[in-house]
Amino acid sequence: MNQPLSSHVSRTIQTKLVLPPDTNHIGTIFGGTVLSYIDEIAAITAMKHSKKVVVTASIDTVNFLSSARVGDILMLEAVVVSTGRTSMEVYVKVECENLETGDRTLTTTSILTMVATNQDGKPTKVPGVIPETEEEQALHQEAQARKHRRLKENEK
Amino acid sequence: MNQPLSSHVSRTIQTKLVLPPDTNHIGTIFGGTVLSYIDEIAAITAMKHSKKVVVTASIDTVNFLSSARVGDILMLEAVVVSTGRTSMEVYVKVECENLETGDRTLTTTSILTMVATNQDGKPTKVPGVIPETEEEQALHQEAQARKHRRLKENEK
Amino acid sequence: MNQPLSSHVSRTIQTKLVLPPDTNHIGTIFGGTVLSYIDEIAAITAMKHSKKVVVTASIDTVNFLSSARVGDILMLEAVVVSTGRTSMEVYVKVECENLETGDRTLTTTSILTMVATNQDGKPTKVPGVIPETEEEQALHQEAQARKHRRLKENEK
Amino acid sequence: MNQPLSSHVSRTIQTKLVLPPDTNHIGTIFGGTVLSYIDEIAAITAMKHSKKVVVTASIDTVNFLSSARVGDILMLEAVVVSTGRTSMEVYVKVECENLETGDRTLTTTSILTMVATNQDGKPTKVPGVIPETEEEQALHQEAQARKHRRLKENEK
Amino acid sequence: MNQPLSSHVSRTIQTKLVLPPDTNHIGTIFGGTVLSYIDEIAAITAMKHSKKVVVTASIDTVNFLSSARVGDILMLEAVVVSTGRTSMEVYVKVECENLETGDRTLTTTSILTMVATNQDGKPTKVPGVIPETEEEQALHQEAQARKHRRLKENEK
Amino acid sequence: MNQPLSSHVSRTIQTKLVLPPDTNHIGTIFGGTVLSYIDEIAAITAMKHSKKVVVTASIDTVNFLSSARVGDILMLEAVVVSTGRTSMEVYVKVECENLETGDRTLTTTSILTMVATNQDGKPTKVPGVIPETEEEQALHQEAQARKHRRLKENEK
Ligand SMILES: CC(C)(COP(=O)(O)OP(=O)(O)OC[C@H]1O[C@@H](n2cnc3c(N)ncnc32)[C@H](O)[C@@H]1OP(=O)(O)O)[C@@H](O)C(=O)NCCC(=O)NCCS
Ligand SMILES: CC(C)(COP(=O)(O)OP(=O)(O)OC[C@H]1O[C@@H](n2cnc3c(N)ncnc32)[C@H](O)[C@@H]1OP(=O)(O)O)[C@@H](O)C(=O)NCCC(=O)NCCS
Ligand SMILES: CC(C)(COP(=O)(O)OP(=O)(O)OC[C@H]1O[C@@H](n2cnc3c(N)ncnc32)[C@H](O)[C@@H]1OP(=O)(O)O)[C@@H](O)C(=O)NCCC(=O)NCCS
Ligand SMILES: CC(C)(COP(=O)(O)OP(=O)(O)OC[C@H]1O[C@@H](n2cnc3c(N)ncnc32)[C@H](O)[C@@H]1OP(=O)(O)O)[C@@H](O)C(=O)NCCC(=O)NCCS
Repeated sequence: MNQPLSSHVSRTIQTKLVLPPDTNHIGTIFGGTVLSYIDEIAAITAMKHSKKVVVTASIDTVNFLSSARVGDILMLEAVVVSTGRTSMEVYVKVECENLETGDRTLTTTSILTMVATNQDGKPTKVPGVIPETEEEQALHQEAQARKHRRLKENEK
Repeated sequence: MNQPLSSHVSRTIQTKLVLPPDTNHIGTIFGGTVLSYIDEIAAITAMKHSKKVVVTASIDTVNFLSSARVGDILMLEAVVVSTGRTSMEVYVKVECENLETGDRTLTTTSILTMVATNQDGKPTKVPGVIPETEEEQALHQEAQARKHRRLKENEK
Repeated sequence: MNQPLSSHVSRTIQTKLVLPPDTNHIGTIFGGTVLSYIDEIAAITAMKHSKKVVVTASIDTVNFLSSARVGDILMLEAVVVSTGRTSMEVYVKVECENLETGDRTLTTTSILTMVATNQDGKPTKVPGVIPETEEEQALHQEAQARKHRRLKENEK
Repeated sequence: MNQPLSSHVSRTIQTKLVLPPDTNHIGTIFGGTVLSYIDEIAAITAMKHSKKVVVTASIDTVNFLSSARVGDILMLEAVVVSTGRTSMEVYVKVECENLETGDRTLTTTSILTMVATNQDGKPTKVPGVIPETEEEQALHQEAQARKHRRLKENEK
Repeated sequence: MNQPLSSHVSRTIQTKLVLPPDTNHIGTIFGGTVLSYIDEIAAITAMKHSKKVVVTASIDTVNFLSSARVGDILMLEAVVVSTGRTSMEVYVKVECENLETGDRTLTTTSILTMVATNQDGKPTKVPGVIPETEEEQALHQEAQARKHRRLKENEK
Repeated sequence: MNQPLSSHVSRTIQTKLVLPPDTNHIGTIFGGTVLSYIDEIAAITAMKHSKKVVVTASIDTVNFLSSARVGDILMLEAVVVSTGRTSMEVYVKVECENLETGDRTLTTTSILTMVATNQDGKPTKVPGVIPETEEEQALHQEAQARKHRRLKENEK
């Protein structure tokens, strides 16, 4: 369990076609639909890393930079970028592709903290992570700073 | 449209019974389910205030302080606490009640920015808000500070 | 368990945004969608009163007085208005708000009988109820008459 | 349009396997699930008779005589039993079969009034019905009495 | 268990109204929706024949001969046409009715092999079947040939 | 439009967590759930290749080689392997990973024919494909043989 794992163990990809039930009645995707896609891929990613059932401890601020509409394709990519004793930070990137024009825009990025739990729902140890790409290494190094900011915000 | 509205115009309540499809296979609710409930009530709240279709511009950090399980009841309450020209800040509180013991715990609180849009999906003006309760007045006064923090974080 | 409870213990509110999957292909909400919302809120209401799992024993005639369409908001309110040994009568009111005009119309009212059950699914005792509002007191007083009418109809 | 149709034109059958999402967490089907199955089959039945989009005007009292559990099979049968100018009375019978024992019990019967609508959602004429079986003929003859009882109840 | 059963024991009918969530954004039903309807009715059919929980072992080539659109009605009919020791071949026919014109077209036919399982998920014996109609008798006689073709294809 | 595209343009990956609503009541995934996942990924794959809305013309025999259970992870991979004038053959591979043991088994492979359609739902031209991997090249070469077999089977 102590052996750290390469980030490619957890890296996960999803592709979603935006359909009418995912959108409001003018055809724009609900923020809540995107948020639940983000949480779903983060959970799968953290489960692949920890081989445990996981719960979501937190999700950092999400800015929806651009929208997605019925007929567009959403591409999600997620990877564990840092770990604590029982928690894992998962970085999620969401892009949207307009099928006809082929244009691809960034919808949002997001960082979630997932906690591995045992059968009784208690936090349980996770292996460390070795980031692979440059982007992952940068996110790995800033993990400590993010943890401090979160603690400070929680105090408020 | 310029006439500011009391916060009781937008105040909205939801009550949800946690059912198996909302949970993982050990019976704990998905973070994504809670996030989509939060976005849904925020959208209804902002629509009641603005009488317009709205989109989610952002959701501030969400910390899941405690969990909810199959058979529990989730209570959500939401209200518009501040407004810009086209945007509204919605404050959402989620509590969980264990039916048998009657225990009630705070699951999370969250602040979302919703933007009113016209037929073409372009941002459109919203009325101001007059906060009613003390908690709402406090949230109203801190709105400016939150906006600054968000802008600063986005710059990074 | 014998201590009767005020009706405010069970009073429950829901707010639903009418979306395309809830409607037929000309945008009118399905009766079945409204009926399942009514049953869901009645179950939550009866669970809050009895602190037990409940089953639906019956639903009195439902007349759909007006319709709801995609983009409208449905407001449901429910409360326990009378109790037997193991059963509770829940009164549900459904109103519909047209967001743009702000018009609010009565969609329907309905009375359901919910029965509290124990682990084995057998009916189990429930506390009495003390109605609070005038409307609830009137409904409380007519409970006996409704019970007679139901029995007579069932004989047929 | 004036030519009355035999009831076999509208007679419709459904068979549903009861699955976990249809039930509460002790495995008993929700009343709301059964009600939405009843409304769905009534709508299809009335559409087959009228060749029009239909809306639910009312559903008479429903008594849930016995329950259904995960793994059971629900059998629904529906038929138009009488017609007005624009409305159709649909009779729905729901039975439940326990797969292992082969026992079949009556869950409930129900009578719904469905109204045919044109493109603008306005009520539109429907053909008459010629009941086929003895049960359907009896239901056909009592239609007038049911209509009176409904009107009297609405006055209250 | 050894007593063969008439095919009318398993014969099952479904009627589905095609709704927006079942279709792509130009209103044509998804192949996947039809495939999951086919698998659902095949499972119910095989459960009625075997009185056991069943799993899908295979589905023979499905050709979608014509499409279905929002507002159409799909009619599915399924029946066990042959049996092995623990497996059952289920024949499924899907037709589509255009409500306004009354036109009925064949969408597809399909043959699935379902296997009965016991509590531990292990294959368990099923009764034989006595085909009733001429079409069922023909399908019964060709079962052996289909089995050979499937085995040969799997070898490749 | 005539320029053939490398198969990496269409290659698509999905990762699904098997949850209770996807399974029967003994926790085994429904064949129909897997089939609708297969059709969904095939549609996205063909849309990425053709930049058009697509419909499913056919799905070749699917053999479910092993099962998936609640808590397992399904991995789907799909790619266009050959094209006609308006049709595309999509190869889909489904694997299942048991999270705790890390065991990965082949659930099934499948070949679907998707047809690109224009606004009126009529078949429309698609670009050719240049297969990249050895497996894709082999599948590409056998396409003609599969087409003949399908035509022969359809004649029957
Ligand atoms: C997340 C949770 C398990 C933490 O419980 P706890 O009693 O604080 O446990 P611990 O103090 O041992 O903390 C466990 C880990 O969670 C981390 N954590 C706790 N709260 C956190 C938060 N708000 N944000 C980020 N990480 C958090 C801790 O830092 C610790 O990480 P580490 O082991 O890597 O150092 C608990 O708060 C919980 O169950 N929350 C609800 C989770 C849930 O069900 N989410 C779905 C929607 S409600
Ligand atoms: C939100 C959105 C409409 C803003 O568009 P824009 O071009 O930046 O428009 P404007 O500059 O006029 O800003 C409109 C308002 O949004 C606010 N806003 C923009 N981005 C924001 C963010 N990330 N967080 C909070 N508020 C934001 C602005 O401050 C402004 O508020 P104000 O009128 O009260 O001063 C646009 O970014 C968008 O469409 N995002 C996707 C929304 C969506 O579809 N969400 C669902 C899931 S993707
Ligand atoms: C409701 C049910 C539990 C009653 O069972 P029963 O054997 O008649 O039990 P009892 O005679 O002890 O009656 C229990 C209570 O239900 C009431 N009740 C029974 N049938 C009723 C009906 N059709 N309408 C209203 N109340 C009814 C009784 O009056 C009694 O109330 P009380 O204790 O307050 O006096 C039983 O009929 C049942 O399980 N029905 C199915 C419930 C269900 O699963 N619904 C979901 C959809 S099927
Ligand atoms: C698929 C469909 C568009 C073909 O229509 P058609 O009138 O046969 O059109 P064409 O003869 O021009 O054939 C178009 C292409 O489909 C292919 N095709 C037709 N039927 C096919 C089948 N059963 N299997 C594989 N390919 C098939 C043809 O070979 C041709 O391919 P090519 O252009 O690459 O040579 C038509 O059968 C249809 O609409 N089916 C229903 C599709 C659907 O809605 N599926 C969802 C579930 S019902």
